[in-house]
Amino acid sequence: MRGGPAVVLVEPQLGENIGTAARAMLNFGLTDLRLVGPRDGWPNAKAVSAAAGATDVLDGIQIFDTTAAAIADLHHVFATTARQRCMLKQTTTPRQAATEMLNHFAKRERSGVLFGRERTGLNNDDVTYADKILMIPINPAYGSLNLAQAVAIISYEWFQASTNSCTSPVPEAVTAPATQAELENFFRHLLAELDGCGFLYPAEKRPAMTRNIRNIFQRAGLYQHEVQTLHGIVSELSKPRKTTRNGPPAPQS
Amino acid sequence: MRGGPAVVLVEPQLGENIGTAARAMLNFGLTDLRLVGPRDGWPNAKAVSAAAGATDVLDGIQIFDTTAAAIADLHHVFATTARQRCMLKQTTTPRQAATEMLNHFAKRERSGVLFGRERTGLNNDDVTYADKILMIPINPAYGSLNLAQAVAIISYEWFQASTNSCTSPVPEAVTAPATQAELENFFRHLLAELDGCGFLYPAEKRPAMTRNIRNIFQRAGLYQHEVQTLHGIVSELSKPRKTTRNGPPAPQS
Repeated sequence: MRGGPAVVLVEPQLGENIGTAARAMLNFGLTDLRLVGPRDGWPNAKAVSAAAGATDVLDGIQIFDTTAAAIADLHHVFATTARQRCMLKQTTTPRQAATEMLNHFAKRERSGVLFGRERTGLNNDDVTYADKILMIPINPAYGSLNLAQAVAIISYEWFQASTNSCTSPVPEAVTAPATQAELENFFRHLLAELDGCGFLYPAEKRPAMTRNIRNIFQRAGLYQHEVQTLHGIVSELSKPRKTTRNGPPAPQS
Repeated sequence: MRGGPAVVLVEPQLGENIGTAARAMLNFGLTDLRLVGPRDGWPNAKAVSAAAGATDVLDGIQIFDTTAAAIADLHHVFATTARQRCMLKQTTTPRQAATEMLNHFAKRERSGVLFGRERTGLNNDDVTYADKILMIPINPAYGSLNLAQAVAIISYEWFQASTNSCTSPVPEAVTAPATQAELENFFRHLLAELDGCGFLYPAEKRPAMTRNIRNIFQRAGLYQHEVQTLHGIVSELSKPRKTTRNGPPAPQS
């Protein structure tokens, strides 16, 4: 999705992180990657190999000397930080920020997210350029989030917000869900066989037992071909065997 | 959060991915990491260095030979796949799955998420063990999501759901959901009888047929007493009859 938020990595140290960040961005439809003073310069072979073919992103990458230059064309800037800063800025979450950025996008206003150095994060000067602070909620006992993972989370939330993805039903199948009549027909078959072998004995327990059995299959949301399979299973199991596990061959009539 | 979902990596190839997955898990409060047949064995030095101190997770890691063994103690299993599978299972999203797993957690039911091999993902047999398919919504034009990134997204959504709710486990229920091991035990019983009566013939069709049958019961969310009922049904139906509906009495041996 061109036009999505820009990802701005401020003085990234490891080429691997730049590459995996680019890959995560493209996974979630982002392509505007900007680097501010990458430690090892650019291009970076390690970044290319770590990007695993996310060339759309690396080809369009822009390099800047300063954070100010990197965000010059943006309307809204978020600064990711692991800890609360002593700044009078509103703090938001990845999910809220994604919705806000989507609203900006709808108004043709460009957004960007600043990510800091692997070890030290963004410094206060970087954060000053941001309208809001973006904190990824994280385990307080272990807050060391990998740079590319942070980019992945933000990109993921953007993609969630921009594509209203929701739980899908079972995929279209060649078969249709079984009707209650088809289910009922199977129950009749099964219960007849179970009566035949005395499983539903004694009589006073029969109603509860049949309810139990019915619940099992009722809950499964069976499809027609599955009901056929179950018919087949019951029929086959019910036939006399040439050999049984319980004794010598039982002669056939 | 101890008691959070288990992360099951099926035949992971790169130690780096195991390490970064462990780090991402701990970032978002997960600690139960399980490996099925890691390519380079275990322990793995590259995994340890990539874990960046997420020792809580690596120390508690469990190694298994099969997917079935790795999920034996779980009540609910999700299979992450990049593409739609031709299986009659519901497909859900990380966000939806996180809420479901949190609800299971509240009932003291254990959940786990299966992640496939870096190149090929989960095979159909792996997926068959899952109640539901978990698809991370992703850029259709670039769906190659790094294994550790996938683990990070799922873990992140779990952390969001679990920190935004005050859910706590309820007391043990009288009747418990069946574990995967109990289900597996029933499948063994059923398949043995079906092999005994030649239902799973011809041999080349057996894998697909057994997957179909497994899906029927996997989807039903069976309770322990229901699994016992099913055992009883299969046993009784399989016994030789004094009379059959298909002809004159079959003499018993």
